[in-house]
Amino acid sequence: MNQKLILKIVGIILCIEALCMLPPLLIAAVSGGSDLRAFFAAAVLCGGIGGLLTLTRPDDSRLQTRDGFVCVALCWIVLGLFGALPYFFSGSCDFMDAFFETVSGLTTTGATIFSAPSQLPRGIQFWRALTQWMGGMGILVLVLALLPKISEGSVNLMKAESPGPISTKLRPRTGETARILYRIYIALTVIEAAVLRIVGLPWFDAVTTAFTTISTGGFSIRDASIAYYHSPLINWILVFFMFAASVNFTLLFLMVTRRFRDAVKSEELRVYTGIVVGSSLFVALDLMAKTGRSFGSAIEHAAFQVTTLISTTGYCTEDFDLWPPFCRCVLVLVMFLGGCAGSTAGGVKISRVVVLMKALRRDLRRVMHSREVRPITLDGQRVNEETVSSISVFFFAYIMILLAGTLVVSLDGVDFTSAFTASLTAISNVGPGFGTLGPTCNFGFLSNLSKLVLTLTMLLGRLEIMPLLVLLMPTVWRRK
Amino acid sequence: MNQKLILKIVGIILCIEALCMLPPLLIAAVSGGSDLRAFFAAAVLCGGIGGLLTLTRPDDSRLQTRDGFVCVALCWIVLGLFGALPYFFSGSCDFMDAFFETVSGLTTTGATIFSAPSQLPRGIQFWRALTQWMGGMGILVLVLALLPKISEGSVNLMKAESPGPISTKLRPRTGETARILYRIYIALTVIEAAVLRIVGLPWFDAVTTAFTTISTGGFSIRDASIAYYHSPLINWILVFFMFAASVNFTLLFLMVTRRFRDAVKSEELRVYTGIVVGSSLFVALDLMAKTGRSFGSAIEHAAFQVTTLISTTGYCTEDFDLWPPFCRCVLVLVMFLGGCAGSTAGGVKISRVVVLMKALRRDLRRVMHSREVRPITLDGQRVNEETVSSISVFFFAYIMILLAGTLVVSLDGVDFTSAFTASLTAISNVGPGFGTLGPTCNFGFLSNLSKLVLTLTMLLGRLEIMPLLVLLMPTVWRRK
Repeated sequence: MNQKLILKIVGIILCIEALCMLPPLLIAAVSGGSDLRAFFAAAVLCGGIGGLLTLTRPDDSRLQTRDGFVCVALCWIVLGLFGALPYFFSGSCDFMDAFFETVSGLTTTGATIFSAPSQLPRGIQFWRALTQWMGGMGILVLVLALLPKISEGSVNLMKAESPGPISTKLRPRTGETARILYRIYIALTVIEAAVLRIVGLPWFDAVTTAFTTISTGGFSIRDASIAYYHSPLINWILVFFMFAASVNFTLLFLMVTRRFRDAVKSEELRVYTGIVVGSSLFVALDLMAKTGRSFGSAIEHAAFQVTTLISTTGYCTEDFDLWPPFCRCVLVLVMFLGGCAGSTAGGVKISRVVVLMKALRRDLRRVMHSREVRPITLDGQRVNEETVSSISVFFFAYIMILLAGTLVVSLDGVDFTSAFTASLTAISNVGPGFGTLGPTCNFGFLSNLSKLVLTLTMLLGRLEIMPLLVLLMPTVWRRK
Repeated sequence: MNQKLILKIVGIILCIEALCMLPPLLIAAVSGGSDLRAFFAAAVLCGGIGGLLTLTRPDDSRLQTRDGFVCVALCWIVLGLFGALPYFFSGSCDFMDAFFETVSGLTTTGATIFSAPSQLPRGIQFWRALTQWMGGMGILVLVLALLPKISEGSVNLMKAESPGPISTKLRPRTGETARILYRIYIALTVIEAAVLRIVGLPWFDAVTTAFTTISTGGFSIRDASIAYYHSPLINWILVFFMFAASVNFTLLFLMVTRRFRDAVKSEELRVYTGIVVGSSLFVALDLMAKTGRSFGSAIEHAAFQVTTLISTTGYCTEDFDLWPPFCRCVLVLVMFLGGCAGSTAGGVKISRVVVLMKALRRDLRRVMHSREVRPITLDGQRVNEETVSSISVFFFAYIMILLAGTLVVSLDGVDFTSAFTASLTAISNVGPGFGTLGPTCNFGFLSNLSKLVLTLTMLLGRLEIMPLLVLLMPTVWRRK
């Protein structure tokens, strides 16, 4: 293991985090908030330790697969710990809550321990939104975009941090791919902020909302989330951007470079669009039938909640926990599925479900015609057996972690639905759950054990399980 | 496809079912119940049609894998339809309910649509218990035990009907294996009935309870299920037999033939015992902490409910839906896991979970040491890659069916916990769910759509998904 190089990268990550604390520090200074000193102390501590670590001189610059996994896992844990400092230093909450909130931000989950985010100082509000934006595209992807020559085999960092079974490869060089992804990410954010400003949101609302939409995070500076704005237009604008952010960024790149045909050929995109449209219609119909709403209102809120939960953003325009049972079941199901691979969304991811469906069909064919073995393909390209196997294993591990999380949360005395959806919302990086952890509630009342386990579950979900589990292997810690 | 041979086997199965209707017919005659004519009509219809079908002269006696799957699926559906006749003819319920109850019996689920089974005529009570006993070990296994020369490749029938990823093979000849399995099955049933009679149960109670324990079915002739007897001794006796019935019958065979050492070496048995003991202790401790019970009462009811739900029997000694949340979560989890492969239990099965855990560990090792590829072993024997892959696919299909079932049941307006556990209890062949479908409730109030879907889900669970899905393949129905 290349420990020195890993330490150096952790140092760089901390320096970037310290730099990210400067905008909220400025905002705190301008708004004269009580959080100015907190940001100052946090930035100094974070930048100081990070700076020291960057002085490490690695003997060689090679990074193997396992090094990539360990590096990504360590970076995210360290980011969470140092990112918690502003909350903690400003006295907004205790350290466990601060760690929970930061990881919920970085992993773009959006589950919060604050009952009234609108009461927080401006700097802290901005930091909450910014942590989501930092985590959305991946902070190591950012490092690769800025410092492509940091290591040989940096594709292993990308592989470990990017969501989805097959890693994005737009250009032969990893650094170039990372830069393209970040350019699309920034462009989407800027456009959304501008559009929201144009339709009347204050600048601060527009920017923080853009941060949390494009990262599919879901934090809001308003206590009532998006419901605060009472605007169908804003709801539909957000539906569009949440959908865009949960589509594979490779396809967005194809669209930007005017290769629409190649983009719409994607099986994952087709299935995803089908699920979003179908679920929205079913939910809208059930809402109309059971609550007597008009089609306009029903489809608006149905499309919003389906898109926000399947893209694992987790905003809310209404307390969907009060919706009829069928609607709620559809919403739980889409939370489980999640968005497309290679986007900022969480969940199992549509491409995995598609591959597993094809594996099921292949097994059925095998029963019918025992000698025929056809390979599984996705978008016409063969998916090799090792990938199929690792997708199945991922799916199994996902369910097991979901159930284990449910067990731990149930120790706090919450009912099955609440415990199950709390664990689901954590591993799928959505945000709200159902029942006592529904969209109008918060996670503050849970025990520290539950908070810690949910924090880990969020990290497991964001990093897609393997990097964190690798840390548990004894051989990782053994010296050669 | 060998359609003629399949029709012949369906005919034999129907004749066996008609024969099985004779004991309840006798009981109905002796007890002078209103159900005598119903059993007579059902037996004549079932035996008549079955007899006609057995006249089919197959051109050849070869049965391929797919033929085995199709045959098993058809047999079970036909068994369910004709087995429903006594309920329907006696006016106990309408046909959909009768079909639900029969499939719930045959698949050893034990979910009922009757609110007061104690009010049913004696013959019907006996038939309910007998359907579970018929389905427990598998009725095609019985055919193979009685008529080992029915076909070449009869191992394909056994493969399709026996639960678990690796089919039981005690002796080179399928017929012999089937006979051994049935001998153990009958012996366990006789011993349990005798023991229950000795400790004071009436003969009728003892026999019907033995039928539903050893098949891990869970129907009871008492409205309050086992709680009716108010006896810790009976509870512990049932814990023993439910556990025995949910252990791989191959291991029971090893024990009977005094090869204890080989039996206790089984990884699946060890993990299963560990889960049963561990879960019982955790539930007992939580019961003591949250409700202030004594250890004796807590461990008795905890062990009973854990064993009855993990073995997928589904009796009840207490309304566990009123237990603290953590206890209920543990119970949901064990319902999902289920018993051992090659037993009469349902669920995902412990051996599958063990294999998938090992696959996960292998993937982690692969990250660490990229070139090392070690095969997965179970009890020291290599599990081939095709089996690992089909286990993963099974697991995925299991979850998807579980979620689809939840969606359909939620259309009836029941909450998420009830809908989810109803679907889970159906696919895992347990019996009771939670919430409005809890242990003191029944499935009678559900819509016909929900009942039909749950009936299919029970069949999917019992036949382990593939045989029924094969029926959906268009090529099955195409003539050469």
